[in-house]
Amino acid sequence: MKKNVKLCMVGAGRVGKNHSHAIVRHIPSGEIVSLVDPAEAVRAETGAEFGITVGFDSLEEAIDKVDFDGVIITTPTPSHVELTVIAAENGKHVFLEKPMALNLEECDRIIEVTRKNGVLLQLGFMRRFQPEFVAAYTRIQAGEIGNPMMVKSLTHGPGLPPKWACDLRTSNGMLAEVNSHDWDAVRWLMGSNYDRVYAEIANLKGEMFNVDIPNFYDNTLVNIKFENGTLGMFSGICPCSYGYDARMEIVGDKGIMQIGEMKGEAVIVCNDRDHGLVTPIFKRWPQRFLWGYIYELEHFIDCIRSGKEPAVGGEDGRWAVAGVLAGTKSFQEERPVYLKEVMK
Amino acid sequence: MKKNVKLCMVGAGRVGKNHSHAIVRHIPSGEIVSLVDPAEAVRAETGAEFGITVGFDSLEEAIDKVDFDGVIITTPTPSHVELTVIAAENGKHVFLEKPMALNLEECDRIIEVTRKNGVLLQLGFMRRFQPEFVAAYTRIQAGEIGNPMMVKSLTHGPGLPPKWACDLRTSNGMLAEVNSHDWDAVRWLMGSNYDRVYAEIANLKGEMFNVDIPNFYDNTLVNIKFENGTLGMFSGICPCSYGYDARMEIVGDKGIMQIGEMKGEAVIVCNDRDHGLVTPIFKRWPQRFLWGYIYELEHFIDCIRSGKEPAVGGEDGRWAVAGVLAGTKSFQEERPVYLKEVMK
Amino acid sequence: MKKNVKLCMVGAGRVGKNHSHAIVRHIPSGEIVSLVDPAEAVRAETGAEFGITVGFDSLEEAIDKVDFDGVIITTPTPSHVELTVIAAENGKHVFLEKPMALNLEECDRIIEVTRKNGVLLQLGFMRRFQPEFVAAYTRIQAGEIGNPMMVKSLTHGPGLPPKWACDLRTSNGMLAEVNSHDWDAVRWLMGSNYDRVYAEIANLKGEMFNVDIPNFYDNTLVNIKFENGTLGMFSGICPCSYGYDARMEIVGDKGIMQIGEMKGEAVIVCNDRDHGLVTPIFKRWPQRFLWGYIYELEHFIDCIRSGKEPAVGGEDGRWAVAGVLAGTKSFQEERPVYLKEVMK
Amino acid sequence: MKKNVKLCMVGAGRVGKNHSHAIVRHIPSGEIVSLVDPAEAVRAETGAEFGITVGFDSLEEAIDKVDFDGVIITTPTPSHVELTVIAAENGKHVFLEKPMALNLEECDRIIEVTRKNGVLLQLGFMRRFQPEFVAAYTRIQAGEIGNPMMVKSLTHGPGLPPKWACDLRTSNGMLAEVNSHDWDAVRWLMGSNYDRVYAEIANLKGEMFNVDIPNFYDNTLVNIKFENGTLGMFSGICPCSYGYDARMEIVGDKGIMQIGEMKGEAVIVCNDRDHGLVTPIFKRWPQRFLWGYIYELEHFIDCIRSGKEPAVGGEDGRWAVAGVLAGTKSFQEERPVYLKEVMK
Repeated sequence: MKKNVKLCMVGAGRVGKNHSHAIVRHIPSGEIVSLVDPAEAVRAETGAEFGITVGFDSLEEAIDKVDFDGVIITTPTPSHVELTVIAAENGKHVFLEKPMALNLEECDRIIEVTRKNGVLLQLGFMRRFQPEFVAAYTRIQAGEIGNPMMVKSLTHGPGLPPKWACDLRTSNGMLAEVNSHDWDAVRWLMGSNYDRVYAEIANLKGEMFNVDIPNFYDNTLVNIKFENGTLGMFSGICPCSYGYDARMEIVGDKGIMQIGEMKGEAVIVCNDRDHGLVTPIFKRWPQRFLWGYIYELEHFIDCIRSGKEPAVGGEDGRWAVAGVLAGTKSFQEERPVYLKEVMK
Repeated sequence: MKKNVKLCMVGAGRVGKNHSHAIVRHIPSGEIVSLVDPAEAVRAETGAEFGITVGFDSLEEAIDKVDFDGVIITTPTPSHVELTVIAAENGKHVFLEKPMALNLEECDRIIEVTRKNGVLLQLGFMRRFQPEFVAAYTRIQAGEIGNPMMVKSLTHGPGLPPKWACDLRTSNGMLAEVNSHDWDAVRWLMGSNYDRVYAEIANLKGEMFNVDIPNFYDNTLVNIKFENGTLGMFSGICPCSYGYDARMEIVGDKGIMQIGEMKGEAVIVCNDRDHGLVTPIFKRWPQRFLWGYIYELEHFIDCIRSGKEPAVGGEDGRWAVAGVLAGTKSFQEERPVYLKEVMK
Repeated sequence: MKKNVKLCMVGAGRVGKNHSHAIVRHIPSGEIVSLVDPAEAVRAETGAEFGITVGFDSLEEAIDKVDFDGVIITTPTPSHVELTVIAAENGKHVFLEKPMALNLEECDRIIEVTRKNGVLLQLGFMRRFQPEFVAAYTRIQAGEIGNPMMVKSLTHGPGLPPKWACDLRTSNGMLAEVNSHDWDAVRWLMGSNYDRVYAEIANLKGEMFNVDIPNFYDNTLVNIKFENGTLGMFSGICPCSYGYDARMEIVGDKGIMQIGEMKGEAVIVCNDRDHGLVTPIFKRWPQRFLWGYIYELEHFIDCIRSGKEPAVGGEDGRWAVAGVLAGTKSFQEERPVYLKEVMK
Repeated sequence: MKKNVKLCMVGAGRVGKNHSHAIVRHIPSGEIVSLVDPAEAVRAETGAEFGITVGFDSLEEAIDKVDFDGVIITTPTPSHVELTVIAAENGKHVFLEKPMALNLEECDRIIEVTRKNGVLLQLGFMRRFQPEFVAAYTRIQAGEIGNPMMVKSLTHGPGLPPKWACDLRTSNGMLAEVNSHDWDAVRWLMGSNYDRVYAEIANLKGEMFNVDIPNFYDNTLVNIKFENGTLGMFSGICPCSYGYDARMEIVGDKGIMQIGEMKGEAVIVCNDRDHGLVTPIFKRWPQRFLWGYIYELEHFIDCIRSGKEPAVGGEDGRWAVAGVLAGTKSFQEERPVYLKEVMK
């Protein structure tokens, strides 16, 4: 199996490290030939950890100096459109982390520039590649629970996100940064687009964490009506303190399906009968979605090799952004918001 | 232990049978001395099954002929106010099934008449007495998960309710008939009243079951903002086909708690590796909440004996009805509805 | 339903209390009309707790003074044969706690005297009435796992038994006092008698608990070959410290079945991601086998009413005692022992 | 990270494929530079599947033609000693599949030849590298359950092993071929060697599978007394039909620990309330111990790189073989057998 797909990792932070690990360690068909990050110390650390010896401050420089097939963009949301344009116009395939962009105009620009330049665009919705989610999708398609009627999802994460990701003036906040995966997963499993959404938010831990962002919220519950008349909801809590939690439940007209669990390891201990059984939990997202990250990146590499279209692309990213915008408008205006209001 | 509390069971149908079973079989301190139901065949069957030999067409007749301390009202919602008035004015304590009544005026009348006549009023929210819910409440009070931030609940039941209970012209529909327990349980565990609610509904199985009621719905998702700023939601599905399912999940600023499970029996079988492990499920509500029904009725009997106020009373029933009214208004007007709009 | 079966509870200690609770609280068809225990304080306490106002020092006295249909013998093993003889010769049906007796001669005497006097004899193997064990038995009979090939069982209990029950000079020790239920359950589910047994024992906590009994053991592993050629094993640990644990696993030529679980309540909590999920455990045997105790005593009462033979009787008790004797001989002589060696 | 450890895979069958997958796919620091198998078709298939283009009929030929650091021996047990001698005498490090050898003389020869030639010897006990087993070991070492008192293990596999592996005239049968891992794991977790063992066997499916080997058995239960006085047992069933099942349970003087589970995927479905919840199971060993295989081979490669001694070596393999020999002698002579009888 030749190491014949060459990649440039753009962003050397948490996600850049996670994806580098997946490729270097578990995907022999891909190779990271350069690492881009203007923060030299971070770049050096990530480069050293994964044996990536070639690094640059900017994507342009990397393109100029090194030959590669595609880029993996793991930088903050505001930079997505610009980096994608650079990559696409230089003929590089694009793997883009969620959320796709800050607004629909940027999404359109990303879709357009990749199409026009004939490069692939894959969005980083790794749940679509996580084995138990894939198994659930396959079972639903096979009719095991009949026609889906109602879907529930949750993403609760332990740590406070960086400030820019909590502030609606610089990002779309938790609905985008934490719940992008829920937006995508409920739409994928229900096989229908959102018709309207209603979102409640609350700021319940801000004071505890000394957050002074005026529009900060750390809890959300989103209600969704799909175009086909079915219902859905998801919750987001961040920081939630107790671990990394991502599960779904879907009811069809013939049955119910549960996807995922909190248990992180097949060991159970009891040494105090007043306390009870203790089971380890998933603590962090890289552990929770280990295989999803491996398989999504392998899929991207396979698509580059074969030229086939990625299973999750620009339209999927765009719908998730549209959901975020409608959800945000909903809690701001305290009313249900139709997708057509934000999608025009 | 003397059999010294005498009760009159009003209603000999499904719930009347369930409660008769609980008392006759598991509560030695209570005794059913008469059974009221105008449907003679049903009354005869239930009477025979539980050894209740004295039966009447009406509560008035029972009061006239037999001596007892309290009534257990298990009849359809529209009859609740009238039966409570009769009981209270004759000095009988009242155990009243949910939903309390069709509207808040009826609730007020029930509260008033029981107060004025000095009789106890207990609402049939048996989840407050179900061991795992009680354990959860106790743990929350003890601070195990910190301050509750978000609560989720669900009630999914297998069978199509009777026609009157599905039609908004004769009842408050699924939000009342199926989800009364969720309304009460989320309020109880969060320790806060609802501020506003938003409800989505869908009719996804009506056609399959040949339901021709114009306002029928069988799926609902309700979003709740509590007065203390926290969030909640619950779902209702009826008929759901796969069993009787009632679970909750509550997240506090220090942790998460799961209450209840689908598993109905501690046996697991595997005889086909392509199929997997099979675990029995709860099939019906009397099995799911067996202990809740026993303990709530025992509590009522204890209150009669001791004169103490029941732990769940008219105000709790009234809040659940108010939630139902706000939820119904919400899906009818497609907007969030404040409780103050329906409670005045 | 008339309270028409009158019972005399013999023994007012832990088991006497447990069985009184089951009858007084959950079995309306039975009534405890007298309580026998020479220890006056214990008798007074148990009598007060369950409203049994008539008490005696001896069974003879009770028989002389009060009318009843049967006795429930919950006293220490050495007293079983004498009490059974008194009851049987006075025409009282006998419910006898495990272990049946100290040796096979006593078992034979018990079987003989009850037969000759035409009274029923039921052994206190409540697992045969515990819902998940009954469900397992039914599923096995229905062929769900094919022909049973191997059975495993365990009973691990938290507390140190009373001294007489730990000493082979005064009882048959843990194999009898703790594992009688395993002896019976494996034989019942496999549908075959033991052919030979091999037992290992260990004294691993004796020092910690300052036990100075020379033959004391607190851990045992017993291997069983059944007459039909299948295999079985069980473990006993007492005291085990972590809770009350009783589970089984049985493999047939078509599948596997697991019976029971450690989890004692449907609540799960997580408030520390380094610690993990916490689930309450069964702490004590009355909680673990609540329904088994209720149903076995109800079965006894039903048999008295109907005259039908109890489902678990003298032969079953005798086989369990034979197993204990063979197991004890095995660890003493450090070799497998055939049942025919001890049964003659 | 340089691909600097070169390996020769000896044996292209089921295990050879499994280990090739682990290395090619998940261990970038190792490289398979040649594949040895006299069965040309099998070799071609495995070579093609994993991109190993260089293949030979014999290890000698591979050594002669290609440069590598170590061998991975996955061939049937009888070939182990000869292949190890060839490898060691040519300075190649040895990773050897279980069971180590047919008898203790062969074990000694393997230990001696690798020592004398200064090459590493690692045994293929992958459970020592499987995350939940490692976590359990770590927790035990940290004192979480106190001093281990009793260990239970099981390995039940779905398929009938090849004929040579079922016949005591050509191998040591199921105790060796299936239960080698249990022998090693119980010794590892208890931290003590076997003092004596007692084994029961049964042939319960031979007829169903038309097995005509006279000494065939498919069920075994083994009782172990450890040198430190603690107890252990394990079961083997093969073929068991219902899936691949490998779990352990260990009780210490302070608590209990369960390791592993039957559940193979975090998806649960219910679409029939009479049937219940369905959970996928582990079907085959490569799926069950995926990470164990990756980590054990990575450990071997790390040891080659660093020169450090593998964590599981010749002595461990030798003890497992000694257990097999004592167990076999036990069921043949129908008595407990001390290890000193077979180890001299």
